[in-house]
Amino acid sequence: MTSTASPTTRLEEAPTPEEFGVGARLSLAVMRDDFVDVILGALAATPADGLVVDTDDVSTFVGGSEQDIVRWLVGVLAHAAGSGAHVQATVTLSRGCPGEVACGTGVVRVGEVRTAPATGIDASAQWALYPLSDAPAADHMRDIHAAIDHARTVGTFAGSQHFVTALRGDLADVITTAAAGWVLVGRSVAHVTSHLTVSLNSPSRAARA
Amino acid sequence: MTSTASPTTRLEEAPTPEEFGVGARLSLAVMRDDFVDVILGALAATPADGLVVDTDDVSTFVGGSEQDIVRWLVGVLAHAAGSGAHVQATVTLSRGCPGEVACGTGVVRVGEVRTAPATGIDASAQWALYPLSDAPAADHMRDIHAAIDHARTVGTFAGSQHFVTALRGDLADVITTAAAGWVLVGRSVAHVTSHLTVSLNSPSRAARA
Repeated sequence: MTSTASPTTRLEEAPTPEEFGVGARLSLAVMRDDFVDVILGALAATPADGLVVDTDDVSTFVGGSEQDIVRWLVGVLAHAAGSGAHVQATVTLSRGCPGEVACGTGVVRVGEVRTAPATGIDASAQWALYPLSDAPAADHMRDIHAAIDHARTVGTFAGSQHFVTALRGDLADVITTAAAGWVLVGRSVAHVTSHLTVSLNSPSRAARA
Repeated sequence: MTSTASPTTRLEEAPTPEEFGVGARLSLAVMRDDFVDVILGALAATPADGLVVDTDDVSTFVGGSEQDIVRWLVGVLAHAAGSGAHVQATVTLSRGCPGEVACGTGVVRVGEVRTAPATGIDASAQWALYPLSDAPAADHMRDIHAAIDHARTVGTFAGSQHFVTALRGDLADVITTAAAGWVLVGRSVAHVTSHLTVSLNSPSRAARA
């Protein structure tokens, strides 16, 4: 993170995750009496290398590179699911609006999300993506459909529902799909957010199977 | 819903909630062994008058007027919190994108969200609002700040955090704040979504108090 160039110059050239406001929020719900132990255990067991972490009473914020965020999310959720309890995770991804002030300046950041190792954990999720462009050529539905097409390509697309896209598959693939769509749209739109609700070990899915 | 006018004419005059794609998704997590009974009990105890309801393995969709959605959300969450369990609710609000096809046509709908009766239940929440306008005059941060200013006026604003606004207060006021901001921005932007994560009966808040 050391540089002799001014912050402004660096931002125009290749914004760092911090300069670009790259981060996520995770609200983890564990539907069992021992939820405190499961949640704190999952957070403690997952390395947060490269990330700024801040937990409040509603969610945990992590700031850092797209790849580190994906690795952390998959790790925390896999640990929580390993308890066998029904887990519901609410994830918000955001980039391009550092400090919620200078949003959508036209500067974009090329992020990277690689495939994550499979967890063996089956996930069902609902996903929404929001390209927040004020540019004259803005077409938010075009960008959303590009991200959904990517989900079809990688095989996690499980259907269109009101307001959301259903994703199913290995937990790592589901999270990677959402993050990859977010980064994909981020190549042309500065401020992009995405919301993902993930269900693990659901008894209603088990009953249906 | 009967009309002799063509659907197109009616849409231009005063789109109904259904024509305008007004709805919400609720993912309700109850952090106790008896979560199934609490969730199903809360859904069964709350009248869904005026709403289309469809539950899947990740969330429950409700479609209808803004006011009916608010009443239903407050009812379900108040019932779940009445169990005494720690509850986490993830709410998505959406309007202006019926069928996820003809979004942001420029037609707007004036919705209404009245004050809801207090529940006596303290809520802590994180809120995000997304005006999805492709119009030349689009300024999504201006619209977001108008909604946040409204939260300050009604007294539920509890601070700005990365990507979200913290809301605190009576459960009814917190949900009404989010919905009112969503409707407020909807006066000038067709497609507007909002995400709210609500924490009730949190042990970490009790410990801090």
